[in-house]
Amino acid sequence: MSKDTSAASKSSPKKKPISRRALVTGGALGAATLAAGCDCADKCGVVAGPAVIRQRRELKMVTTWPKNFPGLGDAAEATARNITAMSDGALSVTVFAANELVGAFDAFDAVSGGAADLYHGAEYYWVGKSKAYPFFTSVPFGMTAQEIMGWCLFGGGQELWDELAAKFNIKPFMAGNTGHQMGGWFKKEINTLEDLRGLKIRMPGLGGEVMRRLGAAAVALPGGEIYQALQSGAIDATEWVGPWNDLAFGFYQEADYYYWPGFHEPGAQLAVGVNLDLWGELSASERAIVRAACHTANNDSIAKFQHFNGSALKTLVEERDVKLRRMPQEIIDALAEASLEVYQEIALEDDISARVYRSFSESLAQSMQWSEISDEAYFAARRSAFAL
Amino acid sequence: MSKDTSAASKSSPKKKPISRRALVTGGALGAATLAAGCDCADKCGVVAGPAVIRQRRELKMVTTWPKNFPGLGDAAEATARNITAMSDGALSVTVFAANELVGAFDAFDAVSGGAADLYHGAEYYWVGKSKAYPFFTSVPFGMTAQEIMGWCLFGGGQELWDELAAKFNIKPFMAGNTGHQMGGWFKKEINTLEDLRGLKIRMPGLGGEVMRRLGAAAVALPGGEIYQALQSGAIDATEWVGPWNDLAFGFYQEADYYYWPGFHEPGAQLAVGVNLDLWGELSASERAIVRAACHTANNDSIAKFQHFNGSALKTLVEERDVKLRRMPQEIIDALAEASLEVYQEIALEDDISARVYRSFSESLAQSMQWSEISDEAYFAARRSAFAL
Repeated sequence: MSKDTSAASKSSPKKKPISRRALVTGGALGAATLAAGCDCADKCGVVAGPAVIRQRRELKMVTTWPKNFPGLGDAAEATARNITAMSDGALSVTVFAANELVGAFDAFDAVSGGAADLYHGAEYYWVGKSKAYPFFTSVPFGMTAQEIMGWCLFGGGQELWDELAAKFNIKPFMAGNTGHQMGGWFKKEINTLEDLRGLKIRMPGLGGEVMRRLGAAAVALPGGEIYQALQSGAIDATEWVGPWNDLAFGFYQEADYYYWPGFHEPGAQLAVGVNLDLWGELSASERAIVRAACHTANNDSIAKFQHFNGSALKTLVEERDVKLRRMPQEIIDALAEASLEVYQEIALEDDISARVYRSFSESLAQSMQWSEISDEAYFAARRSAFAL
Repeated sequence: MSKDTSAASKSSPKKKPISRRALVTGGALGAATLAAGCDCADKCGVVAGPAVIRQRRELKMVTTWPKNFPGLGDAAEATARNITAMSDGALSVTVFAANELVGAFDAFDAVSGGAADLYHGAEYYWVGKSKAYPFFTSVPFGMTAQEIMGWCLFGGGQELWDELAAKFNIKPFMAGNTGHQMGGWFKKEINTLEDLRGLKIRMPGLGGEVMRRLGAAAVALPGGEIYQALQSGAIDATEWVGPWNDLAFGFYQEADYYYWPGFHEPGAQLAVGVNLDLWGELSASERAIVRAACHTANNDSIAKFQHFNGSALKTLVEERDVKLRRMPQEIIDALAEASLEVYQEIALEDDISARVYRSFSESLAQSMQWSEISDEAYFAARRSAFAL
């Protein structure tokens, strides 16, 4: 029995030839393929054969993370695994860590141009493409994990994000969140603004820019180079993620003071970007699968950071003698003022940046009012009650 | 051409007859069905016909919510829609609001016994089945949305939940979260513990039990009866959900004071329960779809409550002249002490309740330490800085 490739090709939603990705049609697909015989078997000898039922796509996901990187690489792999499982292999996603197919910071261009199908990363890495991008990850004094979800899904954020990404032929989704990121590791205590002047601190992105405005010498080092720089004295301080990832890197061995709260990434949202041509070719069912895999990764990653940050913090304090320090409010205030300056400049950049900033600010103002009397007040009341 | 029903039946993972749900085999399934002809068409006249490729299940989801109920009924409908869409109709889920098929509180028994396939509800409704159930929704001075996710998915909660639910032939998933619930609407200000004595307040569940231990006359009224009771003076106060749902019910017209923070449901997790026989029959792909639909509902519902509570709070304060009041710490402390009493009693109930309580408490202790220096500290620092 022949494979009816003409029928397969008629059923394909594909509008134009795609050379950039392997498109496997006519393959047998596990449970989806049955022995479909005709009822004239006794006459023509055809008993059964594979029915061609849908096309199978081999998709490449590039990421901005090292192989198996806890929390971040995890979220990419979970998303890919889930898309493959839910589609029963019809969308079969292979994950490439940074530098396996393209460099971490080339992931965006690879998906935009079609050399890869999806990326998993953090949108603020694309600030060179648009100043508006960092708002979809995290900005200084911005949103917590819950707040950015509210803005994106119900406060107009996703629509602006779609509009921005479409300029680059990409369809974006939330697909992970680190939750609150700590203020960082310092070799010396920070008591006044004077202590920031000349301080060599590893802090990339807008947080680093804000630090520079207060006189710090902020640098951006890749994760793999931080420990060595701290050990050699090339830097005096560093931020990274939170207790879970920081414990693994061993920073406590080189810097005694661990500062809280962080101001620079109060809830860093991770993202998947899908090549927009591919997105246009997917069926309604496949689109629902991709979206749900991303939102599931978002949900599960918030849970993962919450749990492992809690247990790692306990280890750091009880077994590694880390000295926790609260960042003085005087410094917090100055950082906030500098952050607002940075935002004003971004809002002047272009039309989409202005609209993203306005939408973000309106949503944040409402969330702040609600968070103050809900989670913030509850945390304080519970802590006080349990200290009885 | 005939439908090859024998092939369909061989491919079915079904192990035993199921009368309780419609199992449609051999149906044509949209894109999944292709014209599969044999290559002897010119000889036997068979050109094409539907290939039977998988069974289709019509599933019934019963819920504990009224039709289209904002936030809660929404989450049920989104979960069902998503399962249907992702499976391309192979799992076709129809939602029944409370009383459409069975009463709200009969949803559990319906799924346990097989009269329905899934329920969407809140696990604390099943406290009559086991005292351990409320821990999987929310308990007084318990976990926020993020904290309960951390416990369930990575702190051992899901395993205990699975064990508990399996006794009732159910497989449970998180599938929504209201976030923080407000302290409630009061006709008079609450300043001392004395003000609670004899207070007629609508507060169901463990929160109501805790209130009773402080001398309040706590009653459990269904949502639809609260407004009338508040208006007639049958009750002096009521809790419901948060600004979004409370604004819709118009409680501000009958009670001037809106208290924060709530102590009784700091992040009420909603859940889906799947009939365990059905779960056993699903393919790996279908299981991944059900799980992702539930976790996506969880993610999206946290976002939805965050956004709409923020905007509704603004309306209540700016346009409805609601008087926001902080619950005095003296009362919070007494409520916390009574809550611990209640927990000790639950832990003595039976083995599974004791293990659930122990696991929950250990996770909460770690989360509290982390939340204090992360989100709580950040909320306070940001608010203070922006008040400059």
